[in-house]
Amino acid sequence: MSKTRVLTGITTTGIPHLGNYAGAIRPAIQSSQDDNTESFFFLADYHALIKCHEPDVVRESARSVAATWLASGLDPDRVTFYRQSDIREITELTWILTTITAKGLMNRAHAYKAAVQENVEQNAADPDKGVEMGLFCYPVLMTADILMFNGQKIPVGKDQIQHIEMARDVAQRFNYMYGETFSLPEAVVDDSAMIIPGLDGRKMSKSYGNTIPLFEAEKKFRKLINKIKTNSLEPGEPKDPEGCSLFAIYSAFTGEAEQAEMRQKYADGIGWGDMKKFLFEFLNEELREKREEYTRLMNDPAELDRILAKGADKARAVATPFLEDIRNKVGISPMAR
Amino acid sequence: MSKTRVLTGITTTGIPHLGNYAGAIRPAIQSSQDDNTESFFFLADYHALIKCHEPDVVRESARSVAATWLASGLDPDRVTFYRQSDIREITELTWILTTITAKGLMNRAHAYKAAVQENVEQNAADPDKGVEMGLFCYPVLMTADILMFNGQKIPVGKDQIQHIEMARDVAQRFNYMYGETFSLPEAVVDDSAMIIPGLDGRKMSKSYGNTIPLFEAEKKFRKLINKIKTNSLEPGEPKDPEGCSLFAIYSAFTGEAEQAEMRQKYADGIGWGDMKKFLFEFLNEELREKREEYTRLMNDPAELDRILAKGADKARAVATPFLEDIRNKVGISPMAR
Repeated sequence: MSKTRVLTGITTTGIPHLGNYAGAIRPAIQSSQDDNTESFFFLADYHALIKCHEPDVVRESARSVAATWLASGLDPDRVTFYRQSDIREITELTWILTTITAKGLMNRAHAYKAAVQENVEQNAADPDKGVEMGLFCYPVLMTADILMFNGQKIPVGKDQIQHIEMARDVAQRFNYMYGETFSLPEAVVDDSAMIIPGLDGRKMSKSYGNTIPLFEAEKKFRKLINKIKTNSLEPGEPKDPEGCSLFAIYSAFTGEAEQAEMRQKYADGIGWGDMKKFLFEFLNEELREKREEYTRLMNDPAELDRILAKGADKARAVATPFLEDIRNKVGISPMAR
Repeated sequence: MSKTRVLTGITTTGIPHLGNYAGAIRPAIQSSQDDNTESFFFLADYHALIKCHEPDVVRESARSVAATWLASGLDPDRVTFYRQSDIREITELTWILTTITAKGLMNRAHAYKAAVQENVEQNAADPDKGVEMGLFCYPVLMTADILMFNGQKIPVGKDQIQHIEMARDVAQRFNYMYGETFSLPEAVVDDSAMIIPGLDGRKMSKSYGNTIPLFEAEKKFRKLINKIKTNSLEPGEPKDPEGCSLFAIYSAFTGEAEQAEMRQKYADGIGWGDMKKFLFEFLNEELREKREEYTRLMNDPAELDRILAKGADKARAVATPFLEDIRNKVGISPMAR
């Protein structure tokens, strides 16, 4: 029985935080351990260029994200872990797919429509004001990311479902025009994906500026935990774990038994200072080894390059012959065949 | 003193005809012999995919166009003659440039606007009906074609001037954002470019279906010359060379002295049959050696592949290190540097 190909793109903008870890990194790594799946993970640095024109940020993010996933337990021998920009075949496929993608399809993409909507609301003379081709063409690159490896299951957030549907559309069109070539990818949306609160109680997210970096140095990490917003109940007063950020974060790293025990401590009136100290020590212990590995990798970028180069070789072993076949199908082939 | 880089893209849709030869191929090859220029010629097969979804046509056109230029005297040792699709760096640069190109710029491209206009005139529900992303994004690919080799002078038809201006725009924007990188290309429009009439007297053009293939086999070639439209004047009646297709074609291949002699024959009342016979024999002689070379190359596709592979090596010697530099500038670089 053949394995299911699962393909996961990892955005490389920003430094991963606790929320990324609990909501995305940890479950993805767990899934990759399933023997019935063949997993591809890639650092989407060509997507990063759409949003970020600061080279040092692009560079640092890719490095930090790579180190984070590896330190978190992603096994590069088990999965195919590569950097998108190492696989030139992807941009070539992007162009080939560009020639068969209807512009109308892109006109309907949510991210583009949102940008236009904003311009319209602000009475901009040009509804495309400030819109770059990167934003507009991004679904084609994403389609190429997926189809290049015949990804079957694509774990995504709800906001990305549309892009997977577009990839299906384009794949179907190619298959119809040039003969059966691509599997049709399916979006896999994990509704149970864990969301943890940030410093201010809202969802932890880079865009809210309320994050706790996953592998922050111990001292700074303690400070950040201490900054998490709580209510003003005094020690000794019984507290409700529901709606408490500290409890929510703790729950993301523990099982039912530990959570039940903690509920009891809340009922018994644990003070916020004690709870923060406990949470810091617990998380610090939980993440210590991973953080050490992260730090080691961040200090040894050549090692990251070696790992990614091996991943690129594995990815190209799929992409190169497949692209050759695709090129042939559209009429790009050696003169003598 | 450094040489001027001239970059010429050759569309690979269709089989080259007499008009292509006189109007484009011959003058371009002549220019390439100028010692002050460094010429790049490429088969634009990735552009061909925009208009043509028939693999065999894409393939055959590339083969025939390559054989035509070589048989016509293009010296692959003197110039850099390559196939666009052999230089994967170009599609990668296309994506990088996509991320810094304003969508508004593409909205204003003539070819796209013409397609929309047609839809509007036909009251189509969607002005983008039938428009593919290839048509819409084509100026970005063309920009990458040019900037990848820092082309300075770009010989184009009037309809392409706008695309060169777009390429300048994008080059300037990149230079501004990431530091001086690209030379700004300039369009070179040859107003004196020769236009010869086709079978029906209108400009010889694939879209009119009135062409005489440049290297048509002798028998067929004679037949086509005989089909060229003339007026109904009888032999012996004086004829006006102006407005006569036969004379116009003859003029495209001769100097003033020969043309003066021919004017005399017209004045003396040469019959159309005799003139056609003369023109056929003249062109047949003029093209014989080139046609033999064309036929030899068409029958030896492996030789074409060898020549194009050498050209691709030369092109990559420029493109590969340059793209490395560009990647670095935008933040796509090894982790250890």
